[in-house]
Amino acid sequence: MSNIKITEPVLLLDAQKARRNIRRMVEKARRHGLQLRPHFKTHQSQQLGRWFREEGIRAITVSSVRMAEYFVEDGWEDMTIAFPINLPEIDLLNQLAGQIQLNLTTVDPAVTRQLGREIQHELNIFIKIDVGYHRTGVQAEDAACINQILEEIEQNDRLHFMGFLAHAGHTYKARSESEILAIHEDSIARLRKLREVYQKKYPSLVISYGDTPSCSIAEDFDQIDEIRPGNFVFYDLAQSQIGSCAKKDIALAMACPVVAKHKERNEIILYGGGVHFSKDFLDLGSQGRSYGELVRLEGNFWSAPIPNAYLSKLSQEHGTLNVTDQQFDEIQIGEVVFILPVHACMASNTMRAYYTLDGQWFDHMNGRAIQLLKKIESV
Amino acid sequence: MSNIKITEPVLLLDAQKARRNIRRMVEKARRHGLQLRPHFKTHQSQQLGRWFREEGIRAITVSSVRMAEYFVEDGWEDMTIAFPINLPEIDLLNQLAGQIQLNLTTVDPAVTRQLGREIQHELNIFIKIDVGYHRTGVQAEDAACINQILEEIEQNDRLHFMGFLAHAGHTYKARSESEILAIHEDSIARLRKLREVYQKKYPSLVISYGDTPSCSIAEDFDQIDEIRPGNFVFYDLAQSQIGSCAKKDIALAMACPVVAKHKERNEIILYGGGVHFSKDFLDLGSQGRSYGELVRLEGNFWSAPIPNAYLSKLSQEHGTLNVTDQQFDEIQIGEVVFILPVHACMASNTMRAYYTLDGQWFDHMNGRAIQLLKKIESV
Repeated sequence: MSNIKITEPVLLLDAQKARRNIRRMVEKARRHGLQLRPHFKTHQSQQLGRWFREEGIRAITVSSVRMAEYFVEDGWEDMTIAFPINLPEIDLLNQLAGQIQLNLTTVDPAVTRQLGREIQHELNIFIKIDVGYHRTGVQAEDAACINQILEEIEQNDRLHFMGFLAHAGHTYKARSESEILAIHEDSIARLRKLREVYQKKYPSLVISYGDTPSCSIAEDFDQIDEIRPGNFVFYDLAQSQIGSCAKKDIALAMACPVVAKHKERNEIILYGGGVHFSKDFLDLGSQGRSYGELVRLEGNFWSAPIPNAYLSKLSQEHGTLNVTDQQFDEIQIGEVVFILPVHACMASNTMRAYYTLDGQWFDHMNGRAIQLLKKIESV
Repeated sequence: MSNIKITEPVLLLDAQKARRNIRRMVEKARRHGLQLRPHFKTHQSQQLGRWFREEGIRAITVSSVRMAEYFVEDGWEDMTIAFPINLPEIDLLNQLAGQIQLNLTTVDPAVTRQLGREIQHELNIFIKIDVGYHRTGVQAEDAACINQILEEIEQNDRLHFMGFLAHAGHTYKARSESEILAIHEDSIARLRKLREVYQKKYPSLVISYGDTPSCSIAEDFDQIDEIRPGNFVFYDLAQSQIGSCAKKDIALAMACPVVAKHKERNEIILYGGGVHFSKDFLDLGSQGRSYGELVRLEGNFWSAPIPNAYLSKLSQEHGTLNVTDQQFDEIQIGEVVFILPVHACMASNTMRAYYTLDGQWFDHMNGRAIQLLKKIESV
């Protein structure tokens, strides 16, 4: 941290923690004989993506066609877009399908047919299954819809059925390991039933499953082929509340200058607001909300969260840090404090760049134009 | 809207509405003999800022030193940074103070002294007064602190006392005109008392006041010199819930492709999530949350919100639109729907660009590098 003077909010990345988080998931996948197809929507960073490549990862997940394009630029050649097919983007889909192994997810027979008409290259299709999260997906029991989609795929030479894909996003409402595991068991049971029904006709079908809580905690992946967690690379306070990680695993912290102190309320005002953290919060019940927790930087590491010191309010650029008497006296205006974020994906998305504790700027897709500018400057 | 094919979420700007909102506030300020120093943190756009200039505005408010720099680039020469002095940014502050009429806001005597030591050009200082919002500011009754700050200013030739500045941000918790007005009256009463005390010694002191709810609704600005609303240029559903505006005044809508439909829940899945809208929501009590309301585009205008059609959930890229049976049947996968945002400032900040209904891309500070790239390309 010696090579940067922090004058405004900066999103710090602890490379050691993130790489350890990656390695741990890679090893877990290997132990269970699973393909790890990590979701890159959390970090959205080409440079960070290379850490996964160094661990042997060759296939990834993204959440938008634009994000696919961003990672194709950095040489990724096998990608699942885990988002319903967005037909208005057919031109870019055609371009990508001509360049890489592209896997799309469908929830609808008519959209599948339309895709088949408009796509000019071969690609794989996952059927997205709703295992109880109820965001999107075909109900696991809805054999009619599944069979209609399969028929559409069969009728088109360019479309290949890849398997069933599910996201048990309802684990995000869990508050303990046992709650996570209950959802996990229920979800994979539904997927196993699908395998039983379709395995014979499609012997190479892939069951793709994933969400960071399940993949972090569960040990039963019987009949699952692939996992797609994303958030685990950074983790965050929300994941810690769910029970997916320990706070010491959190690999991001926001550096925020202190700009004011209000003794009568034991509140410290930070330069660091909704435009930096985004607005996700932990509900503390009668204690209000937490938008982040204070840690202390000690050389090239940060400490565990300081008890009773949390961001209680956020407006556009202001953050309000609630502290104890002692902390209030210790922290001075003009110094920089460090805050663990509630939701790593959203904070990264808003910040658009990372600064590693060993002094490198890492890209984020939203700062893409900045990367292009740097390229132009260096020519 | 004929000249763009919407393939992914796009933040649409109704120029007519925004310009009408601007004109209305300009006229109101004129009627009350107030200086309107609009807060540009809402739009963060150089192009949009020019609409204010066309209405005669020459002095503006920003919420960060970086934002000041962005608007200096477009020729603005009189600016208040309505955020506590952030000493680590002294180099940029020095640069700006050498270029324009810069006004800073202070809440602390020691910071004021330190600023005085490090600043190389003359600038004006507002004392930020807490009129009840309790985010930051000196309590209006804290004469000791106010006098200490004034002493620091007096002792430095480069610092000039400009007056008292307040932001009655607690109006954002109001839910009716009368609640807004009660806060407004209480706030300006505190400011009037300060004027009484300090007017004699500082006959040209400025009382600067503002927040969009008060400035939109109140008609009593006696003893106030300047107002600094920002959000009024766009308004949004939060402002409409507070009582600051009618929904027909809202000048932004997010265009989102429809990617899936779930009849069993009357839910329509949009490409449009937290990375587009940010995560602000209206609390609907037992009905959950609303992250936006559906409107229909009719030529170059959008309709009033369609009753009972609102975004009930947001994840990173997915938005879940709750609709009635009839709406469910009418809206098709692949088409584009239009959503009024809950919080215009945050949605703009995340989207980083605007597309006007008459077919122009407008800049946002966060897309700055894109603007620079365009300049390079056009050379």
